[in-house]
Amino acid sequence: MARAETRDRARRRTAKRERMEAVRAFATGRVLDAGRTRDALQALLRPGDRVALEGDNQKQADFLAGELAGCDPEAVHDLHLLISSISLREHLDVFERGVARRLDFAYAGPQSVRMAQLLADGGIEIGAIHTYVELYARMFVDLIPDVALLCAEQADREGNLYTGPSTEDTPVIAEAAAFSQGVTLVQVNEIVDKVPRVDIPGDWVDLIVRSPRPFALEPLFTRDPRHIGQVEILMAMMALRGVYERHGVTTLNHGIGFDTAAIELILPTYGEELGLRGKICRHWTLNPHPTLIPAIETGWVESVHCFGGEPGTERYVAARPDVFFTGPDGSLRSNRVLCQLAGQYAVDLFIGSSLQIDANANSSTVTEGRLTGFGGAPNMGHDPHGRRHPSPAWLGLVAGEPPVLRGRKLVVQITQTFRSGGVPAFVESLDAVRVGEDAGMPIPPVMIYGDDVSHVVTEEGVAYLYRAAGPAERRDAVAAVAGATPVGRRIGHRRVEELRRDGLVALPEDLGVDVRRAKRSLLAARSMEDLVAWSGGLYDPPARFRSW
Amino acid sequence: MARAETRDRARRRTAKRERMEAVRAFATGRVLDAGRTRDALQALLRPGDRVALEGDNQKQADFLAGELAGCDPEAVHDLHLLISSISLREHLDVFERGVARRLDFAYAGPQSVRMAQLLADGGIEIGAIHTYVELYARMFVDLIPDVALLCAEQADREGNLYTGPSTEDTPVIAEAAAFSQGVTLVQVNEIVDKVPRVDIPGDWVDLIVRSPRPFALEPLFTRDPRHIGQVEILMAMMALRGVYERHGVTTLNHGIGFDTAAIELILPTYGEELGLRGKICRHWTLNPHPTLIPAIETGWVESVHCFGGEPGTERYVAARPDVFFTGPDGSLRSNRVLCQLAGQYAVDLFIGSSLQIDANANSSTVTEGRLTGFGGAPNMGHDPHGRRHPSPAWLGLVAGEPPVLRGRKLVVQITQTFRSGGVPAFVESLDAVRVGEDAGMPIPPVMIYGDDVSHVVTEEGVAYLYRAAGPAERRDAVAAVAGATPVGRRIGHRRVEELRRDGLVALPEDLGVDVRRAKRSLLAARSMEDLVAWSGGLYDPPARFRSW
Repeated sequence: MARAETRDRARRRTAKRERMEAVRAFATGRVLDAGRTRDALQALLRPGDRVALEGDNQKQADFLAGELAGCDPEAVHDLHLLISSISLREHLDVFERGVARRLDFAYAGPQSVRMAQLLADGGIEIGAIHTYVELYARMFVDLIPDVALLCAEQADREGNLYTGPSTEDTPVIAEAAAFSQGVTLVQVNEIVDKVPRVDIPGDWVDLIVRSPRPFALEPLFTRDPRHIGQVEILMAMMALRGVYERHGVTTLNHGIGFDTAAIELILPTYGEELGLRGKICRHWTLNPHPTLIPAIETGWVESVHCFGGEPGTERYVAARPDVFFTGPDGSLRSNRVLCQLAGQYAVDLFIGSSLQIDANANSSTVTEGRLTGFGGAPNMGHDPHGRRHPSPAWLGLVAGEPPVLRGRKLVVQITQTFRSGGVPAFVESLDAVRVGEDAGMPIPPVMIYGDDVSHVVTEEGVAYLYRAAGPAERRDAVAAVAGATPVGRRIGHRRVEELRRDGLVALPEDLGVDVRRAKRSLLAARSMEDLVAWSGGLYDPPARFRSW
Repeated sequence: MARAETRDRARRRTAKRERMEAVRAFATGRVLDAGRTRDALQALLRPGDRVALEGDNQKQADFLAGELAGCDPEAVHDLHLLISSISLREHLDVFERGVARRLDFAYAGPQSVRMAQLLADGGIEIGAIHTYVELYARMFVDLIPDVALLCAEQADREGNLYTGPSTEDTPVIAEAAAFSQGVTLVQVNEIVDKVPRVDIPGDWVDLIVRSPRPFALEPLFTRDPRHIGQVEILMAMMALRGVYERHGVTTLNHGIGFDTAAIELILPTYGEELGLRGKICRHWTLNPHPTLIPAIETGWVESVHCFGGEPGTERYVAARPDVFFTGPDGSLRSNRVLCQLAGQYAVDLFIGSSLQIDANANSSTVTEGRLTGFGGAPNMGHDPHGRRHPSPAWLGLVAGEPPVLRGRKLVVQITQTFRSGGVPAFVESLDAVRVGEDAGMPIPPVMIYGDDVSHVVTEEGVAYLYRAAGPAERRDAVAAVAGATPVGRRIGHRRVEELRRDGLVALPEDLGVDVRRAKRSLLAARSMEDLVAWSGGLYDPPARFRSW
């Protein structure tokens, strides 16, 4: 029971003071000279440091990423990077140049091929692949950052930050670093005398630097209605009748994709006709999807809380403060962690598309040769056992052994049976299993586990997996809606009829869905121009989505 | 597809402007005249408003609660209150006086009997009973507050708030209200020229009022080691060897109680002897438990992130910034939502005590006549299916159908087989089932579901429920450690031997635990004085815990 040796009880605080002294030559107060950013990083960082580099789902601390990648590996090496989304070339340059060695991350979409290669070559050491919120959670436990490199729209000279609509992940990373004696350095588009609102207090910010160009921001949640076809519309009609209407879903989260965009776009038409306005889809947790604009304008949507922003929706969102969470400055306040909390504990339904679903309803977006990771879908796409408050939709999927019963979240997978190019969406074994093995992962990178999935919607019909008595029946229900894929071919007509009779499967006619009506005329908006019109000219689509 | 009728698109913003104008007569800038608080509330509130009244697990906006209860029900009525913890008389006075009608809450410990009575009399309408974070989640979805009544230690005249160590739940409630055009009114202990640090930016705060007395704060996490006996110590020894050591648990959360306090207090003795320092219990998510001080002082603990503060630990925590999350002012920054996130997604083990466990390992702290609610245990005490990153402890409980396997959180229930007074802890049916029926709840208020529990520790031994092949085997394993309770008497000696052989149950001798060593001499601190001594005089126990 010896007391630990006498030692400095505030080593991190001491280290911070030393780091800040070392960087002083390159700064005036909190403001770093942009031209000396690399020198400042070299003065600030120590070999082996744990560095949280802001690379969110959408916005990127790209200037700081580039400056970090340019550091002299003699001076700065063996860093341990925490990056939620590996999106930029610079994120991996840092490893190729020997500045960093170890990586913990959540998603690596655009850089996933190069990442797999770098891993195979031994140029990178992976800690683990997380979901976004898991990675942030660990920043308060066993991955506490020494330095955080962040981004925001504006700062004042006291370091108060204005993030604008893309608050996204900045507050949680800033909090982890600022209250653990870490150093926070923020690239901003502008330094101003007074920020329009304070998203993060200056107290939490040690250094700011004006980036030579605005931070990169991807419009990931914009889908052009032009690309929505009859099959997506048919599936949307079935989802609406067979899931939303049947279960009375008032609170929900939509993943991104044309399938869910189709649902958003038939609310003001098909949904209205069914008399469902005010009865379903009232409260949402999702980014500001442009395809939700017609539903908002026709009075379907009471509230939307957002993970992040979406370029082009700024003026529209600001003009709808009854619906969106906006600040005293008028613009959106998003917050990934709080929206994830809301999506996990306050909403009744998650619906998303997958690239592959296996016979047990496990699904993944991982395909051969790509180490993409998880993002946020696993957090939304599972039944949270920590939920206790009931709602009609949740209680409708009651589970457990009487008398100890509980409700269940609706976790819906929506997909065509074949993807473009005739590739089956339903497969015997997920590519993720092989990718996981090849990458030496202890368990395969499954996005959503089959036992958490309550419904599968395809152009064939709806499978009510939550009603299955066991794994065998669940597999049959999946097969019944898997069409002509190898998984679907395993089931015979008679068994499908049994499943229909027992309420495990519904075909369009069982749901009162007239397949002939699945036409583009059912979409409230059929083009980006239509969305702009619905917005009263307030929506400004990014250039790549403009054809006029 | 008719566009909604032309209407005010910013009704909430308009309403806020009107409310703020109505209250102007009682304020100078943002500062409300304390003597006119009731008038101000009457001017601010409208019948039917949804009001978030800060009543956290520990700190209470008690002055505002009292002023609200004193409002004229002719002027203010039919409010819908959102209160996480119903702790004060005033919380229910508001209903008895007709000021409020509807309640959504999470926990009602001290007022649970009166609440049940008020409910039976029709004096209160319950929306739902939540966990803390569920209630906050809904504030961003379908329970968005019109007005938030909060508390903090200090404010400056611009409304910047300093919460001190008990940041707790204030940031999340403030964010929900401030960005949804709600009005935020904060009682503070002091109004100062400059706050020591900004916990919540003044932008988010509409009104502040200096409370005539400091807000109430309960030392809920202080346990006097004097009350820890041999049985708790024996269980702690078994938990340490049979769970922590066996699974290599490095990240964890302890619930409150003498059972877990005993574990904290034998780390520097028994744990040290076993050579476990640095191998287990390195990163913690929990309030600053005074009983953790010896483990911190002997170098066991690398980090602690806290849900809230604990009265008396302020100076000690401030002196240990390498361990605790502290701000630039030196004092603790706690945050319930982020600590819950960490506890859910970043730690491998939750351990807590229950009042009752049934034969299927479902547990609850609800007993006859009390409608207590949930608090935070269900969020910590379940296996989060949204987790994807592996750790050795998590992987050790691998589950699922190959090849789609996943790890599992360690959810441990620790309890003596009989509570004080000879009341069995293991019961055939939870009181919660009857209480739920009596209160008309759609499902019983179960705290932790049996299928989420991985281990049960009693003075008899450890049951490894995660190894059970099915519900029947799980029931046997529970029974094997349930001693002479009705549940325990159901199992015979031979079956217990089988379970030991198969690794489903371990008795002290199976774990190398010498029962004779379970003595108070094994506690690193045996009194509050000992804790103070360990802290080097930095810990200041609240008066009720002082006997010297």
